[in-house]
Amino acid sequence: MIDPSRVAVVGVTGYAGYELARLLLRHPHIDKPTFYVRDAQVHCLTDLFPQLRGWGDAPCKLLSVKEIASSGAEVAFLSTPHEASLELVPALLAANPSLRIVDLSGAFRFRSGETFSNWYKLPAPDAKALSQAVYGLPELYADKLPNARVVGNPGCYPTSVILGLKPLVEAGWINMARGIVADCKSGVTGAGKEPRRDTHFVEVNENFRAYNLFSHRHTPEVSDHLGMAPENFVFSTHLLPVDRGILSTLYVWLGGARKLDEVEALYRKFYAGKPMVRIMPAGKLPELQFVTHTNFCDIGFALDSTGERLVIVSCLDNLGKGAAGQAVQNLNGMRGYPETAGLL
Amino acid sequence: MIDPSRVAVVGVTGYAGYELARLLLRHPHIDKPTFYVRDAQVHCLTDLFPQLRGWGDAPCKLLSVKEIASSGAEVAFLSTPHEASLELVPALLAANPSLRIVDLSGAFRFRSGETFSNWYKLPAPDAKALSQAVYGLPELYADKLPNARVVGNPGCYPTSVILGLKPLVEAGWINMARGIVADCKSGVTGAGKEPRRDTHFVEVNENFRAYNLFSHRHTPEVSDHLGMAPENFVFSTHLLPVDRGILSTLYVWLGGARKLDEVEALYRKFYAGKPMVRIMPAGKLPELQFVTHTNFCDIGFALDSTGERLVIVSCLDNLGKGAAGQAVQNLNGMRGYPETAGLL
Amino acid sequence: MIDPSRVAVVGVTGYAGYELARLLLRHPHIDKPTFYVRDAQVHCLTDLFPQLRGWGDAPCKLLSVKEIASSGAEVAFLSTPHEASLELVPALLAANPSLRIVDLSGAFRFRSGETFSNWYKLPAPDAKALSQAVYGLPELYADKLPNARVVGNPGCYPTSVILGLKPLVEAGWINMARGIVADCKSGVTGAGKEPRRDTHFVEVNENFRAYNLFSHRHTPEVSDHLGMAPENFVFSTHLLPVDRGILSTLYVWLGGARKLDEVEALYRKFYAGKPMVRIMPAGKLPELQFVTHTNFCDIGFALDSTGERLVIVSCLDNLGKGAAGQAVQNLNGMRGYPETAGLL
Amino acid sequence: MIDPSRVAVVGVTGYAGYELARLLLRHPHIDKPTFYVRDAQVHCLTDLFPQLRGWGDAPCKLLSVKEIASSGAEVAFLSTPHEASLELVPALLAANPSLRIVDLSGAFRFRSGETFSNWYKLPAPDAKALSQAVYGLPELYADKLPNARVVGNPGCYPTSVILGLKPLVEAGWINMARGIVADCKSGVTGAGKEPRRDTHFVEVNENFRAYNLFSHRHTPEVSDHLGMAPENFVFSTHLLPVDRGILSTLYVWLGGARKLDEVEALYRKFYAGKPMVRIMPAGKLPELQFVTHTNFCDIGFALDSTGERLVIVSCLDNLGKGAAGQAVQNLNGMRGYPETAGLL
Repeated sequence: MIDPSRVAVVGVTGYAGYELARLLLRHPHIDKPTFYVRDAQVHCLTDLFPQLRGWGDAPCKLLSVKEIASSGAEVAFLSTPHEASLELVPALLAANPSLRIVDLSGAFRFRSGETFSNWYKLPAPDAKALSQAVYGLPELYADKLPNARVVGNPGCYPTSVILGLKPLVEAGWINMARGIVADCKSGVTGAGKEPRRDTHFVEVNENFRAYNLFSHRHTPEVSDHLGMAPENFVFSTHLLPVDRGILSTLYVWLGGARKLDEVEALYRKFYAGKPMVRIMPAGKLPELQFVTHTNFCDIGFALDSTGERLVIVSCLDNLGKGAAGQAVQNLNGMRGYPETAGLL
Repeated sequence: MIDPSRVAVVGVTGYAGYELARLLLRHPHIDKPTFYVRDAQVHCLTDLFPQLRGWGDAPCKLLSVKEIASSGAEVAFLSTPHEASLELVPALLAANPSLRIVDLSGAFRFRSGETFSNWYKLPAPDAKALSQAVYGLPELYADKLPNARVVGNPGCYPTSVILGLKPLVEAGWINMARGIVADCKSGVTGAGKEPRRDTHFVEVNENFRAYNLFSHRHTPEVSDHLGMAPENFVFSTHLLPVDRGILSTLYVWLGGARKLDEVEALYRKFYAGKPMVRIMPAGKLPELQFVTHTNFCDIGFALDSTGERLVIVSCLDNLGKGAAGQAVQNLNGMRGYPETAGLL
Repeated sequence: MIDPSRVAVVGVTGYAGYELARLLLRHPHIDKPTFYVRDAQVHCLTDLFPQLRGWGDAPCKLLSVKEIASSGAEVAFLSTPHEASLELVPALLAANPSLRIVDLSGAFRFRSGETFSNWYKLPAPDAKALSQAVYGLPELYADKLPNARVVGNPGCYPTSVILGLKPLVEAGWINMARGIVADCKSGVTGAGKEPRRDTHFVEVNENFRAYNLFSHRHTPEVSDHLGMAPENFVFSTHLLPVDRGILSTLYVWLGGARKLDEVEALYRKFYAGKPMVRIMPAGKLPELQFVTHTNFCDIGFALDSTGERLVIVSCLDNLGKGAAGQAVQNLNGMRGYPETAGLL
Repeated sequence: MIDPSRVAVVGVTGYAGYELARLLLRHPHIDKPTFYVRDAQVHCLTDLFPQLRGWGDAPCKLLSVKEIASSGAEVAFLSTPHEASLELVPALLAANPSLRIVDLSGAFRFRSGETFSNWYKLPAPDAKALSQAVYGLPELYADKLPNARVVGNPGCYPTSVILGLKPLVEAGWINMARGIVADCKSGVTGAGKEPRRDTHFVEVNENFRAYNLFSHRHTPEVSDHLGMAPENFVFSTHLLPVDRGILSTLYVWLGGARKLDEVEALYRKFYAGKPMVRIMPAGKLPELQFVTHTNFCDIGFALDSTGERLVIVSCLDNLGKGAAGQAVQNLNGMRGYPETAGLL
């Protein structure tokens, strides 16, 4: 018998927050989520999003730490800016010692608060809260979720790169001295909802560009969880003229010649029992369209004839497995639900 | 022997202004355009647009009515907001009695200043300047261009609708009592370059919507130049997920049954000698892709078997024939150049 | 206690069939659908669509009327070409007197087999099967679904136009003498999956065009179910550069002046208790993005200041409410499930 | 005084051929191109492309080697399949000893006919014709154009990769032992006009995928002209949901630490006097939209703080600098015209 959850959601106006709202409204084990907003005139999500009519009750309340703490919610989702999460997480933990939090911002993703502070140019997160935080990549850290107080929900790019490289790294198959290149491409929802020059339709459509080379804040998140020396790793990001999805093309030189089926076998073994990672069958590469509007991460391979140059292609929906979907997957792990509940 | 023109250009930061700059830089009879800007630090268009390097000299000067008036320019192009044009046109005319102006704003498009004022919620244009203004649709008013002091460059939607309906209206073939419907669709450059919620990539891509129904400011421009009673005319506008182009689907009931070749013959006769309007061959309808990046307006037809229900499809590039291209076509008419000079 | 259904699905290789497969795989009251294909080598849908891995069992069997008839399936879905449905429907009815069929082709949508035959240039459907067929637009014919043997699942354009106009037609508010214009725009999945010149990416992207004017086969479907004289109705179709969605802009002149809230009240009353039609709140128009990947049809209005020129905008997903979603909604009606089961 | 050219064009039905036709029709020093087709019913390019009306005369004749040889044309452009070029080039050279040829296929791009044969699975090109062929990348081989009999017009991807890497390779700055990664992305015109499953709008739009990893036929073209050992080079290609344009992200490790302005200075010096390559100003990266519909190749840089990891971004229009524009640039070099004639 499954024990349903009461959840609180802070921040639904961005793309990830909206996606989260929709996923929670149809999750079979969520007992009516409550949404917290900063505008006292908003009493229902349909006041903000008329297109949500028909999806179920979606009551909104004015954001208040005290209110959330006493609401009976077991889990609070924060789809808030880094700055807001830095404050809300310790405040909520203090106000309700049994409340658990899934934070979608970058604030609680790093083992070291200093790393966060350096890359995000913001104060380090509260040390006590951070010490209770788990990096919410269930394929790597599922065993920590049942007892996690705080889950730092991973970034979209890091999820695709870490899942794409981890089996090789762990097996020690990569010739690290030659370096790894991660050439990543993302849809525009990843750039946020704020109207800016560079997200204007005409500046994105029929266009393509690299951005934030050597300065993207997801860089240390990848190094951190793969255990790579930064100088052997190049991580680049590009803006695709699509709404959703990340495709990361990952380049490694193997330490010795391998066969394609050995590589596949390594990945299949690593991800056995992990329903949200799908290894492509031999000769097939993943495509963005296979993962958008899903919580899957698809991974495929190409190996050259010498068996040493390996390209891994890793694909996911930046709003799904790269944000809201993964947050729900983390909830499932925290509460003991089936890993795919509400995600198919 | 063709007498080259010196021209001044005010306003190049928007999409139409940028397109105008590119057309003028490659026009064979323009002797180096000068661009006027509001930022004293900008000395060359490539300071604003690095991608213009290689297109030729494009010197920028600080905007000054006095400077333009004494620059030796024969023609000034204003690709400025309505408010700015309202002020600049009379000021420039006063400062240099021989200067001639092509204004791309809405300020000088209407026979009555009051119509402008009512629809644009702005002061009426200077009466004297307006009395010297010609509506710059060369297919209808080419004979007025050689002596025009001020040319009110038409709106993008009106150009497509007026060119699409004028031959029928003039021939008296339409059953006006049944009404005319103009269902128009435009690309996003028509919505301006300012980042706004509704021009964010994600709000336009994979989306389509109607907007400004019964309130679009291009409505009276169409009625004015077609001589239609507003109550018999519905004009609607929609936003297409493309960069450029307008396609207007125009619906009329004819006063009596006609054959398709009669309709075509009427249009071919009306537009004989007008190189920028192309009547599609029988059985072919125009498409957006045939006119984008050109100054053509393509027109095609479908007639039902009773011969009374006629659909006209009229297509152009909102930045070409709908704005910058048409401004150059007007220059050609004002200066006696071949109508297509710089436009093929 | 809800009685689950066993269903058979024929035809999953097209876009609508694939969407149907996905909806059925997650429908709470479907007890494992069986898919019938023409290729004996295909044993599971993931053989055809690797991206379906993880969505549940999807066994495929070789298409056989006898096999379907004896499979225990209560309902068979046919997402097959018109020609195939013309044969399969009577054959299945004959082979199993209790089997019920939802046919997504055009074959069983018309009251008169002759109308189908004339517009589709195919033989008329079997008279007996047609006499048992219900037009599967649940908002109009829900009461006939519980006992329907055959459901002719409506076309995508007709669904949007009929739902958008029916309340006005039934109320007698339209001045029919002036005529109705339905200007419809569809995404490319509506054009089928077969690679053709006109569905090549480069011929659609950054393009827009009208097609099949006065010859689209959905024309009589609309007239039939709205009871309109064809000569007073113009139905046009355009191809949008998007994957999914139909937006129909409908133009009517009312018989007398009305207020916007009267129009809205009329529609709200008509669609009361119909959860899949959403009437937009005053001043808001529907957009494609609000209905894609859903089974909703959204309807909004604009009325001019005289109260006589009315524009109705009707929006849906051509693969959702326009095809596969509606097929599931029909199943729900046939089997007595909640109307939205499996559709939110 | 410039001597105008008479040119023959074979193959205009593909995207590159159509672009070539448009460029030649507006080239100031081309004296009316003649187009050769395989259909005797086609007498003018507007028979094939109604949208070309208004661009000037475009007579078509039935394809015949004899006819071309005796037509008085000084230069023949072949925008034909590899197979056709393999036959036409030697036949035309034999039929008219003074005729010169620009071939846009892959047949005459390789120093070794065997390399072509191995990668294209076709017979090797005629040895004598190949011995007279120049690789038509004017930035590297301009001095050979004035006397070239045959110009093998480069592939689109190789143009972007070779131009992006050549200055570094020549300077010996790259640490080759660590390998080079070229992650390239192209618009869909590069995939040809033939309707295929993988160029259907719905399979490309809102999608992104890698293809032909370790098997793309442009691979040896890059190695050949950069002089790189294949095992140190990974070349990958991806399909962007845009019509035109290639962006190549190139990853190298430098042999020693450099500063960004040293890198830029190296490139500026290398491309001094080469008007079609634009080096981006410091801190700016090229974007696809800056080069589409042009013949420019834009190159920009990002260097990490250690000064050893360098990313080069190289951008061009696959139909412009990557095909038809480059063919015209080659004509200019062959005939002694200004390098940018007809290309701005």
